[in-house]
Amino acid sequence: MINKRGFASDNNSGVHPEILKAISEVNTAHTIGYGDDKYTRQAIEKIKEFFGDNIDVYFVFIGTAANVLGLTSITKSYHSIICAETSHIHQDECGAPEKFSGCKVLTVPTTNGKLTIEGIKHHMYGFNFEHHSQPKVISITQTTELGTVYTPDEINKITDYAHDNGLLVHMDGARISNAVANLGVTYRKITTDTGIDVLSFGGTKNGMMYGEAVIFFNKELSTDFKYIRKQGMQLASKMRFIAAQFNRYLTGDLWLKNASHANNMAKLLAMEVEKIPKIKITQKVESNGVFAIVPKEYIPVLQKEFFFYVWDEGTSEVRWMTSFDTTEEDVRLFVNLLRKIVR
Amino acid sequence: MINKRGFASDNNSGVHPEILKAISEVNTAHTIGYGDDKYTRQAIEKIKEFFGDNIDVYFVFIGTAANVLGLTSITKSYHSIICAETSHIHQDECGAPEKFSGCKVLTVPTTNGKLTIEGIKHHMYGFNFEHHSQPKVISITQTTELGTVYTPDEINKITDYAHDNGLLVHMDGARISNAVANLGVTYRKITTDTGIDVLSFGGTKNGMMYGEAVIFFNKELSTDFKYIRKQGMQLASKMRFIAAQFNRYLTGDLWLKNASHANNMAKLLAMEVEKIPKIKITQKVESNGVFAIVPKEYIPVLQKEFFFYVWDEGTSEVRWMTSFDTTEEDVRLFVNLLRKIVR
Amino acid sequence: MINKRGFASDNNSGVHPEILKAISEVNTAHTIGYGDDKYTRQAIEKIKEFFGDNIDVYFVFIGTAANVLGLTSITKSYHSIICAETSHIHQDECGAPEKFSGCKVLTVPTTNGKLTIEGIKHHMYGFNFEHHSQPKVISITQTTELGTVYTPDEINKITDYAHDNGLLVHMDGARISNAVANLGVTYRKITTDTGIDVLSFGGTKNGMMYGEAVIFFNKELSTDFKYIRKQGMQLASKMRFIAAQFNRYLTGDLWLKNASHANNMAKLLAMEVEKIPKIKITQKVESNGVFAIVPKEYIPVLQKEFFFYVWDEGTSEVRWMTSFDTTEEDVRLFVNLLRKIVR
Amino acid sequence: MINKRGFASDNNSGVHPEILKAISEVNTAHTIGYGDDKYTRQAIEKIKEFFGDNIDVYFVFIGTAANVLGLTSITKSYHSIICAETSHIHQDECGAPEKFSGCKVLTVPTTNGKLTIEGIKHHMYGFNFEHHSQPKVISITQTTELGTVYTPDEINKITDYAHDNGLLVHMDGARISNAVANLGVTYRKITTDTGIDVLSFGGTKNGMMYGEAVIFFNKELSTDFKYIRKQGMQLASKMRFIAAQFNRYLTGDLWLKNASHANNMAKLLAMEVEKIPKIKITQKVESNGVFAIVPKEYIPVLQKEFFFYVWDEGTSEVRWMTSFDTTEEDVRLFVNLLRKIVR
Repeated sequence: MINKRGFASDNNSGVHPEILKAISEVNTAHTIGYGDDKYTRQAIEKIKEFFGDNIDVYFVFIGTAANVLGLTSITKSYHSIICAETSHIHQDECGAPEKFSGCKVLTVPTTNGKLTIEGIKHHMYGFNFEHHSQPKVISITQTTELGTVYTPDEINKITDYAHDNGLLVHMDGARISNAVANLGVTYRKITTDTGIDVLSFGGTKNGMMYGEAVIFFNKELSTDFKYIRKQGMQLASKMRFIAAQFNRYLTGDLWLKNASHANNMAKLLAMEVEKIPKIKITQKVESNGVFAIVPKEYIPVLQKEFFFYVWDEGTSEVRWMTSFDTTEEDVRLFVNLLRKIVR
Repeated sequence: MINKRGFASDNNSGVHPEILKAISEVNTAHTIGYGDDKYTRQAIEKIKEFFGDNIDVYFVFIGTAANVLGLTSITKSYHSIICAETSHIHQDECGAPEKFSGCKVLTVPTTNGKLTIEGIKHHMYGFNFEHHSQPKVISITQTTELGTVYTPDEINKITDYAHDNGLLVHMDGARISNAVANLGVTYRKITTDTGIDVLSFGGTKNGMMYGEAVIFFNKELSTDFKYIRKQGMQLASKMRFIAAQFNRYLTGDLWLKNASHANNMAKLLAMEVEKIPKIKITQKVESNGVFAIVPKEYIPVLQKEFFFYVWDEGTSEVRWMTSFDTTEEDVRLFVNLLRKIVR
Repeated sequence: MINKRGFASDNNSGVHPEILKAISEVNTAHTIGYGDDKYTRQAIEKIKEFFGDNIDVYFVFIGTAANVLGLTSITKSYHSIICAETSHIHQDECGAPEKFSGCKVLTVPTTNGKLTIEGIKHHMYGFNFEHHSQPKVISITQTTELGTVYTPDEINKITDYAHDNGLLVHMDGARISNAVANLGVTYRKITTDTGIDVLSFGGTKNGMMYGEAVIFFNKELSTDFKYIRKQGMQLASKMRFIAAQFNRYLTGDLWLKNASHANNMAKLLAMEVEKIPKIKITQKVESNGVFAIVPKEYIPVLQKEFFFYVWDEGTSEVRWMTSFDTTEEDVRLFVNLLRKIVR
Repeated sequence: MINKRGFASDNNSGVHPEILKAISEVNTAHTIGYGDDKYTRQAIEKIKEFFGDNIDVYFVFIGTAANVLGLTSITKSYHSIICAETSHIHQDECGAPEKFSGCKVLTVPTTNGKLTIEGIKHHMYGFNFEHHSQPKVISITQTTELGTVYTPDEINKITDYAHDNGLLVHMDGARISNAVANLGVTYRKITTDTGIDVLSFGGTKNGMMYGEAVIFFNKELSTDFKYIRKQGMQLASKMRFIAAQFNRYLTGDLWLKNASHANNMAKLLAMEVEKIPKIKITQKVESNGVFAIVPKEYIPVLQKEFFFYVWDEGTSEVRWMTSFDTTEEDVRLFVNLLRKIVR
């Protein structure tokens, strides 16, 4: 039987009880819809405490939408967007960026999910040449899809390079809190302070129910975002229930506790797995994901009790994700099973 | 001071306590994301109890998305969509249907929000002529944006006409439950049995938090909807929380109780208002909306205590919406105030 | 047998011999493609002689493209475009404006194809309200699809109203030369001097083979048009052959001679037809089109010898178009036949 | 001074005199517009002589449009299109495929511009997984952008692989005649007989003025192409002038003579250049393009007299294109100059 908490994805977990409570607490009386309410204003103020005052914040339903609408707001259809080949916007959004923005998405192969200037340069040509999609945005993911984390310095290098060349930088922050927890810095340190232009600020993978924020660090870029959001089918009528979640998420360090816990569980898992012969961890464990090569025949046996995904059929690489609610017991049971199978 | 429950919109209300409880009850353990879970399957089964077995059901976040993605799935970009001039898809979706489907939206002026064959015929030409957008869908709203309700017979006339001419019929059912409550029939009677092809089945305006279902009555029309939904940025990761709402909504007649109550409050409001001189009710009160012409100078005075919207500045027509949580006391207070102002 | 010159459309005619000769004359040696050549520069200079120096000019293949790309360059997808219900962009472009620009197209019913401020006002609401497509462009057709012509004063009223309200004005000038010939003014008088923002400047209906110019009267609006044109699939490689046509078209008043002749033939036709009982001319004959109500039974008999289109099946209204190569003999033969049929 | 015939591009040449004559010959009387005329029917029949009867043929203005509209007609927006990294649809269409079709374009690095099954396989995953754009089309270019030519056998391998996996194959045939001339086969041998599904059949780079044909080898794929073409802004009103060109192009082997001549001039150029030290030819010369590495300092000196493009700034690789009108004298003068510079 499948274990009630597996390692498939951090969005297979439910909602943190405090978040649910916060939702419940705003369920009183009537409130103007579509974001013109006090809860939404509070949530925006709360976000400003962490990212600085000089930002614009808009809530949408999900990460794909935050990415696509954020990217659309800073591009025209003849632009191109440069990202890692592993990035969510390229692999996991069913072409939504192309469909909605009209832009070309250009990919860079990486070993660890992190873009480098050298990789980006491969696509930096054809400027002013109308036959060629004009490079306009570099999109990075923090935490990357491979569980690795950009240092502030690495981000700075990319934003400097981008801005020096007339490009903008988008950050897909579906798991940004795990990165912040890992780096031991503030949100601001890896966003506002590094010159990121637009951020998809996610919480659903870290204990929220739904809702994502698009944060603009340059207000000139967001002048028509309210129309883009509406036309992009992402304007919630009962906005207060998204706002309440962000309010609570950013209060009392809930975001940090959840992210740190998930990270710690991943580290524990990796530490234990490393001791097992025949299993090879393939990526640095810097957040809540562990990537490992597991002999093919073991995988279905493991999956019978703990659900998780094969990342790469070819190399027999798997991905194990921990979550805010993963327990040490979950890890122990899983490792024991793996140990048993290997023996 | 603004009264805590106004008459601005049925989405200014909160969430019915039973719906909130249902959300809370599925917040246990891990569940596969993106809809491949037992709660989603249950919700789909529940919907089939009401609409028949031979349907396909997909959940999205909001009504605009249900409309736009439902319409996209049954059109190609060179098609046109015929709707009432007052329809949500034309007036209130910021061009999302055009942007996402590429289709032309053709409008028909109406006095009561209801399309008639005669009105539709105005756009029925240019078939097979490649210069002209090809008419493909008739979209009706049940309950209409003016609070009126199509009878089953009126719908039948439209679906027959559509199908006889090679068109399909979409129903925007953001307030379908209010129509069903008013008609005293079943959902099926005005959808499945009338030959509707695609329905946007809404609950947010009737006590839910978020989430809408797109229902296909002809499964051939939904073969690629899963991709359209994902590319349309409407695939929820923690789907169980939408599913739980629909499960509860359709259990123990909660949907019907909420809708009937809102309708009754509108009728009460209309009945009382009709007695007041100088106020003229402009549309039949068949659901939870009351439309009335109110002398211009009264409006801001009323709005100081009860929030509501002016529908037409030119004619000084206002819209008062009741909700599942509107009380007789709310109506009484409002009517008293209006009476006082008029005097 | 069908007569070799009918009254179906001014694009059923061939190419004026002088235009063909001009094409032939630039067919020498190699020339850089895509518009960076001396012939294209000459054509642009020639156009500036007529429309003023402070313009930007881009060539595309056809009128639909000139309209769609011109409109796209001055809108964002959440905008709406207001036009007459009879306009080409609404009736005859198969939804290309919606598909490519993402905008909503709003129509105004007219009796003579000409927009009025009053008609436009019907759509002027919802500003700043994100649920509603934002009105941004008024598009007028000169000559209209009904053969009527806006006076400079009528255009001025529309451009003033537009600019006062933050909108821009696009002119579909597929038959602008016929209007200029009719008014006895200059191109400039009804475009540059009236504050038109973007013009589709056509010649194909007046003796050219293919090619249309998009003219921007405000250079800030055209900064990225070169990319829009390329992404819009309208950048000609052998551009010199479009340029050569415009060069010749605008030399020695060829444009004016052709347009005046076509207009005169329409006037002659109308004058003669008016004398025939049972035939009723329905629009002022101000260009090269004659609209008339003809008893239904006569139409197929006429069409056997002269090809033309029925404009409105319901009212039995037909459209007869004259062309630069229509002869008095053509008109005489046609009128004789009609007279014979009526008798 | 720039030589009147350079080696910049085969579209810098003019129009073959016979093509121009053919255009002139159809310039008589009135003809129904938009393709419903005898010249267009003749041209389609002519094309069927070469490609087989069981095809559908539509004319558009340019190669970019032929590619984009052909691809759009065989995809839905959630599909992906696999092509060589050097392909025109990826490098040189300013994102038109993404903008118009909504699809994702996936690239494969190649050394010679030719896709291989192995390269294609890199993108063949995620089927049925709604998060991922669904691979649907393999697009190959014949002749490739690097002047190389697929053998019939190489194409067969790709079409078989595609069809076995539920994909379709598009061929960008902007220079297909050069490939046919090089292979010494028929058009049919590398298209109809290999199972190509859609072909962009070009002539502008081989002596025509404008116009391209989209050929469907499976008529089920073209059922709505007439609307796609119109909405794609590619329906020519005076279609006869495109048709006349194709009629002449395919008569008396003009297409083959032109292509063979251009190929021969490229071979001659390559043969002579190979003898010059320091110049290194980088691709097989199988059509009318010669790619060579030329020391950086020589390039501007050469360009002063003969215009051509640098293909890769990094490696100092240049592209020299010959044309139907390139003469042996042109080649001789160019080679002499190069020889002089090198010495």
